[in-house]
Amino acid sequence: MTLKKPAPDATRRSEKSRRAIFDAAIALVVEAGYPKTTIEGIAARAGVGKQTIYRWWSSKAEVLMDAFLDLSEQASREAAADRDPHVFPDTGDIAADLKFVLRATVDELKNPRFEAPSRALAAEGVVNEQLGRTFVAKLLEPSLQLYVERLRSAQDAGQVRPDVDPRIALELFVSPLAQRWLQYSGPLSHEYTDTLVDYALHGIAPR
Amino acid sequence: MTLKKPAPDATRRSEKSRRAIFDAAIALVVEAGYPKTTIEGIAARAGVGKQTIYRWWSSKAEVLMDAFLDLSEQASREAAADRDPHVFPDTGDIAADLKFVLRATVDELKNPRFEAPSRALAAEGVVNEQLGRTFVAKLLEPSLQLYVERLRSAQDAGQVRPDVDPRIALELFVSPLAQRWLQYSGPLSHEYTDTLVDYALHGIAPR
Repeated sequence: MTLKKPAPDATRRSEKSRRAIFDAAIALVVEAGYPKTTIEGIAARAGVGKQTIYRWWSSKAEVLMDAFLDLSEQASREAAADRDPHVFPDTGDIAADLKFVLRATVDELKNPRFEAPSRALAAEGVVNEQLGRTFVAKLLEPSLQLYVERLRSAQDAGQVRPDVDPRIALELFVSPLAQRWLQYSGPLSHEYTDTLVDYALHGIAPR
Repeated sequence: MTLKKPAPDATRRSEKSRRAIFDAAIALVVEAGYPKTTIEGIAARAGVGKQTIYRWWSSKAEVLMDAFLDLSEQASREAAADRDPHVFPDTGDIAADLKFVLRATVDELKNPRFEAPSRALAAEGVVNEQLGRTFVAKLLEPSLQLYVERLRSAQDAGQVRPDVDPRIALELFVSPLAQRWLQYSGPLSHEYTDTLVDYALHGIAPR
């Protein structure tokens, strides 16, 4: 048996359907909320058959994770046009690199196209442990691991103490930003994230 | 005209109604979610007339805030039986006091009676900015202000640098705990919150 490569037209059609499905999934979760979003609803809105969705994904949670991953990459690229969101900058200056990425994250979180869908998904994750854990495993943890790697290289360079656990340390500057965004508990600005990085690196106790 | 003091029986009846209303409001928000919880539903479940509720509160958001404030005080008292949740301990050792309160907060967040309602309310606050801001103003910020006051007294005692903003500094240890709880992004333990306090006080960079 010879495997046939799909014709260029078929690939273009697939890409167009995938895009339509992502847009429909994001729009529905914003308008109706996660519990009322269904594969049927996504298919109808995207103008594709249900089977087209089931060919690529096995549940609405999976479609939404991929749709959201795609949207979040677009938002990262818009926030820092010259930056690959999968690579953490390493200029050799840990303070500068952390401040740069956190400033870009502030801009990304304030992107209105990104905000409503991420809030809808985050809210559902608070009350739906399985979805929350999937969201963390697929979307949050991979981006946190970039901080872990950057902090490890800072440890090698003597800029972070060797006994510090990077997976916990990153939360000193990432979690305050996340909480202010999730709970409207304070304003988000570049000055704020710069301050978090300074406090986390140097501590709030006298040196 | 002479104002009459309510008879002891009437006061007891009021307190009983208030308790029944709080229990009904909390149960409904857990079972049906915030959007589907109504004053009518709370009244029916509590076995009181709608007018009894409107005599004390003007909206379901207000009833729920008070019900939740009451529940959260119960949970604080259960987590640290000998502790008044409105007073932050001040033994003169800022590290010990922060660790003590954060350990109690871990226990409180793990209290199953407290967890479901606080998740329901927190989730709604993520997508409903007005409720989110009311939640912060009524419930979160007053408890954060206790940290602010304790950090100010640590500044006076020379245990925290004078140029540090206490309202931002507290987020270094409070927000990581909040994010792990809200997003299921990591386990909660006393060892974890102790580590956050050590990192925040002394910084992750070499001294």
